[in-house]
Parts: sequence; structure tokens; C-alpha cells
Amino acid sequence: MRKLLVSVFFVLGLSSNAQTIQLPAPDLNSSSKSFFQVLSQRKSERSFSNIVINDATLSTILWSACGINRPEEKKITAPSAINAQDILVYVCRADGAYLYHPIDNTLEKVSDLDLRKAVAGNQTFAAEAPVSLIMVSDGVKFRHGNAETIGMIDAGYVSENICLACTALGLATVPRMSMDKETLKKELHLTDKQILILNNPIGFPK
Amino acid sequence: MRKLLVSVFFVLGLSSNAQTIQLPAPDLNSSSKSFFQVLSQRKSERSFSNIVINDATLSTILWSACGINRPEEKKITAPSAINAQDILVYVCRADGAYLYHPIDNTLEKVSDLDLRKAVAGNQTFAAEAPVSLIMVSDGVKFRHGNAETIGMIDAGYVSENICLACTALGLATVPRMSMDKETLKKELHLTDKQILILNNPIGFPK
Repeated sequence: MRKLLVSVFFVLGLSSNAQTIQLPAPDLNSSSKSFFQVLSQRKSERSFSNIVINDATLSTILWSACGINRPEEKKITAPSAINAQDILVYVCRADGAYLYHPIDNTLEKVSDLDLRKAVAGNQTFAAEAPVSLIMVSDGVKFRHGNAETIGMIDAGYVSENICLACTALGLATVPRMSMDKETLKKELHLTDKQILILNNPIGFPK
Repeated sequence: MRKLLVSVFFVLGLSSNAQTIQLPAPDLNSSSKSFFQVLSQRKSERSFSNIVINDATLSTILWSACGINRPEEKKITAPSAINAQDILVYVCRADGAYLYHPIDNTLEKVSDLDLRKAVAGNQTFAAEAPVSLIMVSDGVKFRHGNAETIGMIDAGYVSENICLACTALGLATVPRMSMDKETLKKELHLTDKQILILNNPIGFPK
């Protein structure tokens, strides 16, 4: 009986870790602000309310970050060196951490832990944001060069898209380099070639 | 008489090098495209017509790159590490090379040479663009860290703003890392702490 229970919990545990969320389609009509209006309002904000960001809004932000904007060619909103599309975006929130898959617009659960404090590191304000997005450059995408250098540029492109999408949607965010990289590398199951570069905590302004 | 002529040419030469162009104000109504519409159309394009980009359009692109969007605080459209605002944008076109000054919206001439071939390096298509913008990270803006690393992220932010502004305005561009850095460092009079990171050739699509 005990063996059976352990097996059941093990299977449930696996199932929880393997959970995949199908996101709603991004809503490109969710802001009518013009591009130049968004740029004129872009700013970094470090104070977040605890209002939850729903999956519809999250989907629009993730699509903006590095979502597919030319489905026939599988090309994305953000440029990248030699079109490597090396930036992986992880979503950290109270219910766990997820890897964003642009092609099928899904979130693959990679941890049941709330990793927002690890993202915040010493800057506790960042842990108050309901969602933190982490940009990781995946070195296996580069034949030449590496994720520590070119990946920094590519992360900047993706992070700027996130900053501007938040402005368009009336959300607060700030791009940050600091985070508890040791914990995040372990809990997100990153390889040695997958380099943590930037994060964007996101929330409604307090 | 010869001495006088030499002096006159010398003074004219200096005056030409010191030429400052006051740009027209950026026109934030020059595209009505929504932010999400611009993101959905963003792509890299490598074919440029030789139609000149006028200073009004150039001003709007440069403001988008890293122009002042909060005049009271002298803050800019692009985020940067510790608000270092380390990215300098140089404009290369047929009549010379210029340094963009965001606060007074001017172009300071730094070379009479047409440096677009040096920007293009081995990729000759890039020399056909009427304008190339170069992003340089100025290491003197950082107390800790340096322009070679953090500057790459900050250049990514600025370059993405340029890519999106071009999309908004119907212009073609592609962000590039390759360029003839030796020639550009010399001709733009860069210090050892000013690091060439990215460039964006810009033109109307051919």
C-alpha cells in the first residue's frame, strides 16, 4: 500500500512538473497606443501591486518578447545574431516556473517552486512583482561566438520588446542584470551553455 | 599668399569638422501604427534604395534610438544599466559622420569622410544604405563593469528601438555586429574605452 501511494505521488509529481499550459492567442488589439506614443512613455518602474497578470496578458507580453511574427518562416519579433533565436524566456510566478515556447505558444512547467525571490536577489522590491521574466541565451544555437557575449546583445533586443509591451499595456517593469544565478541555474535545469543574462519583473504599477 | 590660402583652407577645414546640424524636432505623429502592429511587421531587410533620408525622418529615428523622452529628468527612450546612458550613436552618410547629441537634438560632425563602406565591411549590401547608425558604448559612464559586456546589452536596447522605428516609418534596416572597427575607431576619434558594438544601415526598401 505504501509503495502504491509513493508511486501515485511520484506520478502526480512528474505530471505536475510536466504540466504544459496552452496560452490564449496574443491580443494585438489590446493597446491602441502608437509605437511613438509607447516610446515617449517608456520608463523603468520598480513598484508593483500584487494584482495577478492573467494568461491572456502574459501571452501578449511573451509574444512581444520573442514570439512568432512570421509563421511561414518561424521568425520572431526580436532580431538575433545570425537569426540564432538563442534567447529562451522563463516565466516565474507564485505557481512555479515555466519555459515559453514561441512556436506553439505554450508554457512548459520546469519547476513547482516560486522562484521570484531568486530572481529578485538582494533587490527585494523585484520579488513583489506577480511575474518575472528571465532571459537566458542558449549557447548551443551558436556555431561561432558564444552566449556570454552575443547573447547579451540578443537579450537586450528581447528585453526592450518586453519593456515596450509593458508600456503599451499599462504595466510596470524594469530590466535587471542582478539575480541569484546559482539557484536559478539549478532550479530551471539550465546547462552550462545556457547563460542567465537579464530579467524583467512585471506587475501593475502600485 | 600661399600661406594665407593654406590658413584659409585650414580654417575652413576646421569649420567643416566642427559643423553642427540642428535637427528638426522628432515627429511622433509620423506613423499611426500601433506598437503591436509594428512588432508584427518587424523584420530584418538587407536591400536599400538610394533615396535620401531627410533630417526630419533621421531626427525621429534618432529620438527613437535613445532620445530624451522625459526632459525634466534627462531620461531616454532606451533603458541602460544603472541609467548610465552609455550608448553613443554615430550617423554615417555620404556627407560625413556625425555624433548624435540627444539633449539638444543636434548632430556634431566628427569626420568629412563617407564611412559607410567601413561600416559595411565585407557585406557590401550595407554600404548602399543612405544612412548607417553605429552604436558605441562609452566605458567612462560605468564605475563598475565595462563597455565590452554591459554595453552589449545596452546597445541591444537602442538597436531594437531603431529597428522598430524603421518598421513604423516604412524603412528597411538590419542590425549588424560586423564592421571595419579599426578604420571606424580612428575616423570617429574613439578612445580606448569607447567600444564599437552594433550598427544599423537604414534606407527605403528597394
